[in-house]
Amino acid sequence: MSSTFGRLYRVTTFGESHGPAVGVVVDGMPPGVHVDVEAVQHELDRRRPGQSAITTQRQEADRVEILSGVFDGVSLGTPIAMLVRNTEQRSKDYDALKDVFRPGHADYATFEKYGVRDHRGGGRSSGRETVGRVAAGALARAALAHVGVNVVGGTVRVGSVDAHDRDWTLVEANPVRCPDADAAVLMQALIEKVRDEKDSVGGVVELVARGVPVGWGDPTMDKLDAALAAAMLSIPATKGVEIGGGFGMVALRGSQTNDVFDGERYTSNFSGGISGGISNGNEVVVRVAVRPATSIGKPQVMAKKEGGTQTVAIEGRHDPCICPRVVPVAEAMLAITLADAWLHQRALRGRER
Amino acid sequence: MSSTFGRLYRVTTFGESHGPAVGVVVDGMPPGVHVDVEAVQHELDRRRPGQSAITTQRQEADRVEILSGVFDGVSLGTPIAMLVRNTEQRSKDYDALKDVFRPGHADYATFEKYGVRDHRGGGRSSGRETVGRVAAGALARAALAHVGVNVVGGTVRVGSVDAHDRDWTLVEANPVRCPDADAAVLMQALIEKVRDEKDSVGGVVELVARGVPVGWGDPTMDKLDAALAAAMLSIPATKGVEIGGGFGMVALRGSQTNDVFDGERYTSNFSGGISGGISNGNEVVVRVAVRPATSIGKPQVMAKKEGGTQTVAIEGRHDPCICPRVVPVAEAMLAITLADAWLHQRALRGRER
Amino acid sequence: MSSTFGRLYRVTTFGESHGPAVGVVVDGMPPGVHVDVEAVQHELDRRRPGQSAITTQRQEADRVEILSGVFDGVSLGTPIAMLVRNTEQRSKDYDALKDVFRPGHADYATFEKYGVRDHRGGGRSSGRETVGRVAAGALARAALAHVGVNVVGGTVRVGSVDAHDRDWTLVEANPVRCPDADAAVLMQALIEKVRDEKDSVGGVVELVARGVPVGWGDPTMDKLDAALAAAMLSIPATKGVEIGGGFGMVALRGSQTNDVFDGERYTSNFSGGISGGISNGNEVVVRVAVRPATSIGKPQVMAKKEGGTQTVAIEGRHDPCICPRVVPVAEAMLAITLADAWLHQRALRGRER
Amino acid sequence: MSSTFGRLYRVTTFGESHGPAVGVVVDGMPPGVHVDVEAVQHELDRRRPGQSAITTQRQEADRVEILSGVFDGVSLGTPIAMLVRNTEQRSKDYDALKDVFRPGHADYATFEKYGVRDHRGGGRSSGRETVGRVAAGALARAALAHVGVNVVGGTVRVGSVDAHDRDWTLVEANPVRCPDADAAVLMQALIEKVRDEKDSVGGVVELVARGVPVGWGDPTMDKLDAALAAAMLSIPATKGVEIGGGFGMVALRGSQTNDVFDGERYTSNFSGGISGGISNGNEVVVRVAVRPATSIGKPQVMAKKEGGTQTVAIEGRHDPCICPRVVPVAEAMLAITLADAWLHQRALRGRER
Repeated sequence: MSSTFGRLYRVTTFGESHGPAVGVVVDGMPPGVHVDVEAVQHELDRRRPGQSAITTQRQEADRVEILSGVFDGVSLGTPIAMLVRNTEQRSKDYDALKDVFRPGHADYATFEKYGVRDHRGGGRSSGRETVGRVAAGALARAALAHVGVNVVGGTVRVGSVDAHDRDWTLVEANPVRCPDADAAVLMQALIEKVRDEKDSVGGVVELVARGVPVGWGDPTMDKLDAALAAAMLSIPATKGVEIGGGFGMVALRGSQTNDVFDGERYTSNFSGGISGGISNGNEVVVRVAVRPATSIGKPQVMAKKEGGTQTVAIEGRHDPCICPRVVPVAEAMLAITLADAWLHQRALRGRER
Repeated sequence: MSSTFGRLYRVTTFGESHGPAVGVVVDGMPPGVHVDVEAVQHELDRRRPGQSAITTQRQEADRVEILSGVFDGVSLGTPIAMLVRNTEQRSKDYDALKDVFRPGHADYATFEKYGVRDHRGGGRSSGRETVGRVAAGALARAALAHVGVNVVGGTVRVGSVDAHDRDWTLVEANPVRCPDADAAVLMQALIEKVRDEKDSVGGVVELVARGVPVGWGDPTMDKLDAALAAAMLSIPATKGVEIGGGFGMVALRGSQTNDVFDGERYTSNFSGGISGGISNGNEVVVRVAVRPATSIGKPQVMAKKEGGTQTVAIEGRHDPCICPRVVPVAEAMLAITLADAWLHQRALRGRER
Repeated sequence: MSSTFGRLYRVTTFGESHGPAVGVVVDGMPPGVHVDVEAVQHELDRRRPGQSAITTQRQEADRVEILSGVFDGVSLGTPIAMLVRNTEQRSKDYDALKDVFRPGHADYATFEKYGVRDHRGGGRSSGRETVGRVAAGALARAALAHVGVNVVGGTVRVGSVDAHDRDWTLVEANPVRCPDADAAVLMQALIEKVRDEKDSVGGVVELVARGVPVGWGDPTMDKLDAALAAAMLSIPATKGVEIGGGFGMVALRGSQTNDVFDGERYTSNFSGGISGGISNGNEVVVRVAVRPATSIGKPQVMAKKEGGTQTVAIEGRHDPCICPRVVPVAEAMLAITLADAWLHQRALRGRER
Repeated sequence: MSSTFGRLYRVTTFGESHGPAVGVVVDGMPPGVHVDVEAVQHELDRRRPGQSAITTQRQEADRVEILSGVFDGVSLGTPIAMLVRNTEQRSKDYDALKDVFRPGHADYATFEKYGVRDHRGGGRSSGRETVGRVAAGALARAALAHVGVNVVGGTVRVGSVDAHDRDWTLVEANPVRCPDADAAVLMQALIEKVRDEKDSVGGVVELVARGVPVGWGDPTMDKLDAALAAAMLSIPATKGVEIGGGFGMVALRGSQTNDVFDGERYTSNFSGGISGGISNGNEVVVRVAVRPATSIGKPQVMAKKEGGTQTVAIEGRHDPCICPRVVPVAEAMLAITLADAWLHQRALRGRER
């Protein structure tokens, strides 16, 4: 298994949460794409903790440095390495956790897998690993813009509160990143309540890719649905993914869910823009189930390394709802997946898209 | 993009629905595993159409031939190629579809992707491609049995009818492959009704892997969740996947969904046996959303190749609910995914599991 | 490790020499290429044993069957599986070898690697595995023809006899496949002498690809030189490879071996058509060292499975010089490598070549 | 194509010669290996220019920083990123080369491939890219030491001067890195002469891996020979590779080159420790042809970007013979290749080696 996603647009992240740095190597970026370090930084700022009252209050400066692959602001077609130093590492916060395994976390599984572990934070399982993904996603967005593709996303559910509208221009205007202003207020209230209870709550993030041409993806093992599903469930704290109608169309009839197409337009989008694994010209729509964050302040029963259990309250600064911070990560993974599918289609047909 | 799933246990399928044959090459099968051609045939028989009143009445003999990689009933560690000839191909059934694109199907996307297509049946997008997966899955099961892992699965929802019990021994006793005898009766009635309406209905397939040791999977891009999600959404007609609590835990609190572990046992399984991408010793639980089959007998509006639309009723023999036949395919993909994760863990640690 | 060569034009062979069949799956063939089964058969006939007095007298009909990926004589862009049944398997010839390890052969290493082996012939190590390569190479040639690339090759050395001319039109006119008519006579005489001594002799095969555009290959790990070297040394009985000037330019000066280029033409080709890993517009020239065939009729000392040694003469029909039959295999691997590099360049630039 | 070598022990380099940094990500390092940053630095110091009178006089401090994957001096099993800042970049040296393509160099091919280029130095084609390889190789050595494998290497030919002895303990005692003290003196004299003529000369580097157990490598596409050949010809300035007897055994008979094995020892090593692609227990022996360095001080005819030619003398500090500096790089690539083969064998058999 590897730390790489993609085969032609290959994204390899590295770095532990409490090591010297996190980063990414993007190998396969087409040459000649304008690469703006500030666009990368902008996406990292969206991912950063401490942005609002409803995210963790950890402060991470997260300044990105581009180490290679770019000359005079243009991609060379060679690997682009990007680096973010780890700065505010309160490793001490984790001393109490050295000899226990946190419930819901990967602590126990990691220790059994490797035989060694860095107990300070989640190591590779930490949300901090997503810094590299977001940076790589910013480049993928720049590449996709050349062929008229863009991605948006937002939180469409928190607990039992659903968004009904999809006004993507609102997403950055509320701390929940919800495309429905009214729902955003309710979601925020719920998150604050949960935060005060030292608990956490889950939600759903929705993503839309617009402008995807017909023909990306593959009919069998590498269906675009499959690649997107892998992309999404590689994000920490996700436990479900659906394309288009998803689980909701299970109860319907084929005569309802077969999107009618007149050669130019579809009258519905139950397929989520993908038919038989291949993009069909409709918007690509993906939804991701985000579990309640496993790091909570409430005391919990934990297995001890040497046997038995202990009740521990995890100190530190937690996200009561991880959705707002999953949004830029999921958008990045969507862009990366599409960039990879795009390059494969170029290889197949020998033309731009 | 490719027709291969897996990196160490590599499964490559080939074959169009109306070409001479379908098949698979399994490269990476460990040597010394007892390979029983009848066990492979048994799984293929479970996948076969025409098994009951609620599946398509197409008859496919589907006798498998093992072409390589096995000597004296034991795997050699070399590629195992398996072949199934296509026999009952009613290509004529498809003549009416030569110049139209069926709604919900991959016809249009395929044509735009490749510039050429075999209009007779779904080509590679046909469910027939899964023959190779099921054969490869049978071998993966044999390999996993060496380390005490087995997989089961069944239909747990059809339309709005849910299974409440999970008695996996019942699955082969009813045509729906439902692990709940009472629900099976209701599901069957619903499917028959839908069939008589020349329509189709969706459902949910659930899979469980038992005996998976702690430590399989990877913490970042190759999370076991991600690999399973890709495996499942590479199956035709699937549009959603969830692990453990999945979408259902979105509305809960972290204090509820953090599975408590005492060092030996878990009191719940919201993580579906996977923590931070790595198996945690609990049962691995996966659910797949199966859309209503896109092939229906009802007349539908279809886009014509040369422009405009036409209303066509698709002749032929369809599955009113694809779930019963998805079960063996999904089990196969689960076994294949686990076999691959197992071999990676052997590489990482240099020991059996 | 795998039985696959290439990443976008992926060739996976399967089959043991004494199993039911050998074959290949080509995944990544571009759609719309005219695929002529007779062109494939023609290449297989060139590879076949029993073609002349100086090759093994084994007779293998080797009729190829295309199982998938082709419709109406045109590639669909889906996997192309090709099958050749094993017919004349004199397994009995190998009974004497069941309990010994042949010198120079992979018998011992294979047994230690896998813990099991099929002692009848070389199994996967047999030259018979190259049937699939040659079939896949024929398709690669067809694909490359679209962009004006073709490959030729021949035997340029046998023992100490060198070819001085390179008239590739002569290659099929003599049993040695030598591009120099005079040298061919001497080579043939040498091979016959060695054959009569129940011994074998080595040689060098040279390959040339013409029409390769500038820009194929990669500057670092995936240099075109590296890919070609892997391709060549994956052929049985090869133990050396050189590009352009190769080992011969070791004794020269940089001022001699830096090919002068005036923007259109090169005055020399020490780089063998590849500069810094990337094709430079010159002819691609590769030479392969073919060891004396390890299967010889002379009695040899062999290690016994249960310890100790034994002197055994290997019965059966051997090639006294494997070069003439390596030629079509090496050409195939060259074509496959170039097809893969071509598709990568299409992915990189989004245009035909 | 990619900047990655290996599939389980994956080495991805990044960085241009005149960008901010060069480096590498090693993904797949087994956990629990003692990682000594000084051992990495030691190998980098061996690769460094400016070590003696016969290498380029460029000074590069090349201090390595480990960014991830190591905790308390032990590998975590997660990606190990290593970084070396570029410091002494005399970019001005290259201004005269902005509008011409140097003969023998990748300048022209690179420009045509990507459509853009960084004219300052070789970019990715620069020998500076090998910094990452050497760092990754140091880790591979550490991993291989666990299973008793070590690698040595040296310059065995310069121009027409051959080494006759193989005393590997002498390698670091002379600036040529020759395992034969007498030959080293002659080689050095030749290199100094060539240097004074502002020219360059080629040579041969030989590598030996000791302690490789039987069974590493694969019988077909991924023969250990093939992997080693790719590894070697991915090193800048190499144009040939041979295993064991290589080109030299072309003129011999099979009865001479079939290494006799008595079950414990081989009486010769024409196979170079690899039979049928699989290690056979003998020492693995590889030789690499290193062309005369393409960067020379003599005036040369160069193609101009806008057409026509120009005679230019390349300023700067060149290596008159690249062999001494290829030695640590080739050793690194050998170690990396073996580490990858080792992990594959662990996956295949589920045991240490």
